[in-house]
Parts: sequence; C-alpha cells; structure tokens
Amino acid sequence: MAGYILPLEKLIEQFERLPGIGHKTAVRLAFSVLEGPEEDAQAFAQAILDAKQKIRRCRICQNISDSEVCSVCSDLKRDHSIICVVEDSKAVMALERVKEYNGLYHVLHGALSPMDGIGPDALTIRELIARLSDGNIKEILLATNPNIEGETTAVYLSKLIKPLGIRISRLAYGVPVGGDIDYADEVTLFRAIEGRRDL
Amino acid sequence: MAGYILPLEKLIEQFERLPGIGHKTAVRLAFSVLEGPEEDAQAFAQAILDAKQKIRRCRICQNISDSEVCSVCSDLKRDHSIICVVEDSKAVMALERVKEYNGLYHVLHGALSPMDGIGPDALTIRELIARLSDGNIKEILLATNPNIEGETTAVYLSKLIKPLGIRISRLAYGVPVGGDIDYADEVTLFRAIEGRRDL
Repeated sequence: MAGYILPLEKLIEQFERLPGIGHKTAVRLAFSVLEGPEEDAQAFAQAILDAKQKIRRCRICQNISDSEVCSVCSDLKRDHSIICVVEDSKAVMALERVKEYNGLYHVLHGALSPMDGIGPDALTIRELIARLSDGNIKEILLATNPNIEGETTAVYLSKLIKPLGIRISRLAYGVPVGGDIDYADEVTLFRAIEGRRDL
Repeated sequence: MAGYILPLEKLIEQFERLPGIGHKTAVRLAFSVLEGPEEDAQAFAQAILDAKQKIRRCRICQNISDSEVCSVCSDLKRDHSIICVVEDSKAVMALERVKEYNGLYHVLHGALSPMDGIGPDALTIRELIARLSDGNIKEILLATNPNIEGETTAVYLSKLIKPLGIRISRLAYGVPVGGDIDYADEVTLFRAIEGRRDL
C-alpha cells in the first residue's frame, strides 16, 4: 500500500497483539500515541518497561510485587494465620477491593488442568505447602475460580492440606448480589439452595 | 490499598489514558504485558518511541511520513495533477485502502471550527495554496468529513481556490453501500436524492 509508514504499522501491530484489541481499535490507539506529546509517549514506553522489569513475584505468597516480599505479606497488621489461595494476581486485586479480607494470600499462577497438561508442578503448590510447615497457619480459604479447573484445584488442595489439621474453607457459591434469579443458571441456583442460611 | 504495586498501577494508568479504554480493559492490557515475555514488552515500548520519534509530516502534503517527502508525494506513477484534501491521516489510510484514487493528498490536520477557535491558520491551508502556485494542479477533490466542520472547511476552501481556475470536486453524498435505506437519516437521504444519477 502506498502511504505505508513502517513505524506506524509496527505500533499498530503491537496494539493488535493485546487481548481484545482489533485492527480498527489498534489504529485508533496508535494515532492517539502519535498525536499526543512526546513526553506522553516516553512515559508510556517507560511504564511498559518498568512494569516488566521491576515487577517480580513475592518470595512468600508468589503474588506480583515490586519488592522481595509484597506489601501484604510484610504488613504486620494483617492476620498471618489465614491464607486465601487464588489462581492469579487479578483475583488478589478483586478481593483487596472488597476490604473485607484481612489475611494473607497465595497465588497459584494457574489452575490444575490435566487436559492442557497443567499438573501440580506447574503451579506454586510446593511453595504453599512450605508455608504451612511452621504451624502458624490456622485456615486456608480456597478462592480458586468457580469453574472445572478451579474446582479440581480446590479439591486437590483440600486433600493435600486436610491431613495437616488446618481448617479449609471455600468461597460461598450462590446468586450474585444485584443479579436476577431468573437469569441464574441451574448449577448456581442448586448451589445457592444447597448453601442456604437460616435467617 | 494493600497490594498496590506502583509500576503496575502506572502501566494501568497509561493504558487508561488511551481513547476508549476503561479501567477494567486497562487492567487486562497491563496484565497481558506483564505476563508476556520480556522481548515483547521491549518491542512494544520501542514501537511507541519509534512511532513518536521517526514519524513527522511530509514536507509537501503534510501527511504523516517517516521521510521528508512521503511515499505518495514521491511516487512518480501517481497522478500529480489532482490533490485530495482530507482532515487527517486516518482519512488517507481509508482512501488508500480503496485503491481507486491515484492522485496526491493534502492533510489539513483538522477542520475549521470557529466555535472551538480553530481558524484557517490552525490548518495547513497556507501549505495547500502554496502547492497550487506552479500551475500543475488541475483538480482539488475535497474529502473533508461530512459534518458541519468538514462542510465549513470545504466551502471555505472552494471559495479560496475557485479564483485560481482549478476544478473543485467533493466526495459524493448518498446512502452507504450495504446499508439499509430505513436506517438512513433524512439529510443523507435528501442528499442521495439530490445527487441521483441516471442509469
């Protein structure tokens, strides 16, 4: 195509690699970078490099962190006797927004999926078990995703941890708040009835 | 918020600055950069810097270009007697995709909008008029956007250029191909009837 400008095409291509960004959106985003001031482009490029270079995994909970031990693990005001086990860092962010949970986390970085060849060794299960050895942990709250892989992982972990005499809990299933019972699927409704609570 | 990671928050913030990207999408995009390989992040950052640093305006048509004279203006196989006047580089890209137009372009980088204080001096009208002085240009095709600002600009330019004895044309208005007449607005339909052609 005439009018083809290599640096622009490359930038469009980079935006297109991002999840959920199609060609038209990529063009729009590339032009917004192009039309903005030089400093903004530099700040954007720097933010990408910094995020990639400065963020690593917390030595304890395996969540992403910009220090060796993350701010949750190093916070003495939090309850260090309970660990909430999640699949990824996004789940930690979601749970932190609630401001209800005050314990620690453990990020598995995935869920068991034998179909995809993801076994226990691909997750940070070894690191989780190591954290339980000093006897300070009283409860493990399993907050893996409510799907097949998450369930499989929760069952696997509960079998592994039960013999250690630690209390194991699971996030409650039920109808989402603000939702409409008409739209809830059968499995969710079944779990909501099964887990009904006395008023 | 506990678990707040500065480099991640900064990257999310950068994505949120892009047009049409909300917080949730920004988080998703930031994580995709974080989860991808280091080389990808570097390529992305470099593409942003390159696009900003290497792309400038073509000395002749004012379109974005990675050389002093863009590939369209320097292409001797194109018709150098007709100039298509557009508001921005995205319009050039759209017209080039059609592969029907073989002339040159002139990018105004905006449209007249007295309400927003955008007068003729804010656009590249001076550069356009300068291109008409050597007498090689036979036709100006006005392809500003079909809205108030674009119309105003087209009328302004036609009044400016007509005395020079150059043919002035405007993109045809009408119902979009593949569209449904039911959904066409009144003004478009009026223009489509007005501009009807004999079969």
